[in-house]
Amino acid sequence: MRILSRDLQGHIGEQVMIEGWVHKKRLLGGLTFINVRDRDGLVQVVVKDKNEVEKLRGLQIGTVLQVAGTAVEEPRAPGGVELHDVTLTVSVPVTDEPPIEIDKPLSHKPDNLDTLFDYRVIGLRNIQERAVFEIQSTICRTIRDYFYEHDFTEMHTPKLLAEATEGGAEVFKLDYFGKTATLAQSPQFYKQMMVGVFERVFEIAPVYRAELSATVRHMTEYTSVDGEMGFITLQDLEQFLSGLLYAVVEEVWAKHEEQLKRWNATKPLIPKEIPVISMQEIHERYSKATGQQSVGEKDLRPDEEKWICEYAKKELGSDAVFVSEWPASEMKFYHKANDENPQIADRVDLLFRGVEITTGSMREHQYDVVVKQLKDLAGGDPSDPGFAPLLNAMKYGMPPHGGFGLGLERLTQKILGFHNVKEATLFPRDINRLAP
Amino acid sequence: MRILSRDLQGHIGEQVMIEGWVHKKRLLGGLTFINVRDRDGLVQVVVKDKNEVEKLRGLQIGTVLQVAGTAVEEPRAPGGVELHDVTLTVSVPVTDEPPIEIDKPLSHKPDNLDTLFDYRVIGLRNIQERAVFEIQSTICRTIRDYFYEHDFTEMHTPKLLAEATEGGAEVFKLDYFGKTATLAQSPQFYKQMMVGVFERVFEIAPVYRAELSATVRHMTEYTSVDGEMGFITLQDLEQFLSGLLYAVVEEVWAKHEEQLKRWNATKPLIPKEIPVISMQEIHERYSKATGQQSVGEKDLRPDEEKWICEYAKKELGSDAVFVSEWPASEMKFYHKANDENPQIADRVDLLFRGVEITTGSMREHQYDVVVKQLKDLAGGDPSDPGFAPLLNAMKYGMPPHGGFGLGLERLTQKILGFHNVKEATLFPRDINRLAP
Repeated sequence: MRILSRDLQGHIGEQVMIEGWVHKKRLLGGLTFINVRDRDGLVQVVVKDKNEVEKLRGLQIGTVLQVAGTAVEEPRAPGGVELHDVTLTVSVPVTDEPPIEIDKPLSHKPDNLDTLFDYRVIGLRNIQERAVFEIQSTICRTIRDYFYEHDFTEMHTPKLLAEATEGGAEVFKLDYFGKTATLAQSPQFYKQMMVGVFERVFEIAPVYRAELSATVRHMTEYTSVDGEMGFITLQDLEQFLSGLLYAVVEEVWAKHEEQLKRWNATKPLIPKEIPVISMQEIHERYSKATGQQSVGEKDLRPDEEKWICEYAKKELGSDAVFVSEWPASEMKFYHKANDENPQIADRVDLLFRGVEITTGSMREHQYDVVVKQLKDLAGGDPSDPGFAPLLNAMKYGMPPHGGFGLGLERLTQKILGFHNVKEATLFPRDINRLAP
Repeated sequence: MRILSRDLQGHIGEQVMIEGWVHKKRLLGGLTFINVRDRDGLVQVVVKDKNEVEKLRGLQIGTVLQVAGTAVEEPRAPGGVELHDVTLTVSVPVTDEPPIEIDKPLSHKPDNLDTLFDYRVIGLRNIQERAVFEIQSTICRTIRDYFYEHDFTEMHTPKLLAEATEGGAEVFKLDYFGKTATLAQSPQFYKQMMVGVFERVFEIAPVYRAELSATVRHMTEYTSVDGEMGFITLQDLEQFLSGLLYAVVEEVWAKHEEQLKRWNATKPLIPKEIPVISMQEIHERYSKATGQQSVGEKDLRPDEEKWICEYAKKELGSDAVFVSEWPASEMKFYHKANDENPQIADRVDLLFRGVEITTGSMREHQYDVVVKQLKDLAGGDPSDPGFAPLLNAMKYGMPPHGGFGLGLERLTQKILGFHNVKEATLFPRDINRLAP
């Protein structure tokens, strides 16, 4: 019976069998030490017997083998256990050296990223790289659990669409049996429509953007976490998002201490209620503190986003901050203006460690108003069949509702402190990259 | 504070407030009865007071309102509770009649399906239709929990690919900044490659097939449940799939009794170990029982799949059956032939209620063998860059591994007993349908 590396501590002094890949091999004082990698970690194996050493001759890292031996306590070994008096069974010999190092940290410097991604299939065997996606799996699971706790229904909406209802230029088009189809940039309209059915819906699925830019934050495909809720207010949405980020950080730090250390990741400060600051106040504080005049501007400058995050960290004890009171003139047509003050939108952007990670907003749910906004704000034609499903949902009764969309890779990036979102993407796609 | 329909039983005799949509409205003996729908169910509301009745004048099904009143036990009402002495607050009046009935079951007859899908956005408010996707959400959640229990890592692989490595004609192509990209038909190669990293991986995500057929089982986009495991045998895979189907059926029947009744769905018999029958034995039994000669054929006839499922149900007490010992000549190039008998493939198809719901197979993990099979079985060129990632994974060490892919919609369909997979799809896509 195979034992996993994480379970060896419970078998000290016993005969055990492990299975995995040769991760590292070195000679030291007449002994051969190999590290064997399995799905959890590494096991150090001491090979002394000449016949056993002979079995490894000419074999490279990546070789798949079984090791039977005695588990011995050894504080200097990974996991604190070592295997002695071993018998090796090579099940898959590897005779080529791997094209990228898997037993020491790989460089994430900008000029090494193409190499990193070109050799991704093998490079992910590096346990530091693998750790990124083990953490991402936990982030994703925690987000889903949070949705379930809050009574959301999961849905699967189509990514093949007849027309592009949002965006315009940044839409991929494809031949669909002689017609043109487009790839969804977001499940925005579907999630709103499904509030009329389930009240609370979520989806975690790929979305597509024909982004012409090759920057640290643009990708043509990413994993979008989308949530939408009916019968709520903007404050409910703020509370929901605060709790979501809090839950993710707590769970990741509870489960992945060792992997986080490999990346020198520091735990973000996330209060259970993330502070809310109005755009006006940010402009004023920023202008006063930096001498850069931004008061009256309709958006935050990138530098201002960084500044307010530093301010919130220092003064409010939070690595995240909500920006409220966005100008209504900047609304998308499906956004909702504030009932008391129609000059501002019912919207909050969540900034985390210097960048926006999600926009939460209330949606206009009144048929007449959304038809007017479609014309006035987007120059859209309400009789365009692409808008019919959304407008019909309103026409036949939609409650006040709101939601958000959040890039899973960007959240992973900010949690680990990466410069480029692609470092937190399993197989990134951008204008220059379609493989592997 | 709003109370949900499911919680009313705990508030009998109290003043409560509910929120939702008018689902049904009727006059009876001078009283107005309305059913209010929320995310869980229906609440019957008795409106007596003339001023309150007046508030509903001209308003249609779909109207969003708040109802404050006294919760009264009433066995004949849905959920056993009724609201009396109510005050209504209409928050979103609806004055148009819905284009499709939402308060009685909708026809799923083949000639009504187009209507059903054309009006999907509103039609899903029908609680019988909604039930399908509440059940689907539970199926999906149960499958994920089962993966987590078995130590799988979730991954997100790209659907935008440089070349089509599988399939051929049934691949969607799109313009990718002047190059050609294709849409993934399956994460097959990615999941195999990621066994080299995580040992056990899963993904639940859309896949795309440019299917020219408009049948009850073809769609151009569906949700594929993919799992892949290293260091396993075919028997491990059978056990895993048995347990998966068992867990899904148990959880759906535990959670959705009422919704299943709406569809007259009967609970399938799934033993913890689903029986395995060889193709040869099925051919022999079928030929003997029906007089139709199928012995020696390399696949099961559709009629034979139905027959063996009925046989398994009657004789073996199982609504599911594994078909083993497939001819190796029919293997895909990445499949594995049996070590003892290379004439058969290490593959099992899982039949459930008359159709195949998944193929589980061991993959060839030895570099030299897979290169040979690529040439011999698929006529492929191992130097084609599209194969490089998969072949490199083998070259640098892959353990024995296997996995499966399963359509979430098809599983939902068979659990509910639908004739057409599109009935179990939120917004189906086929050669004729790209909207809504």
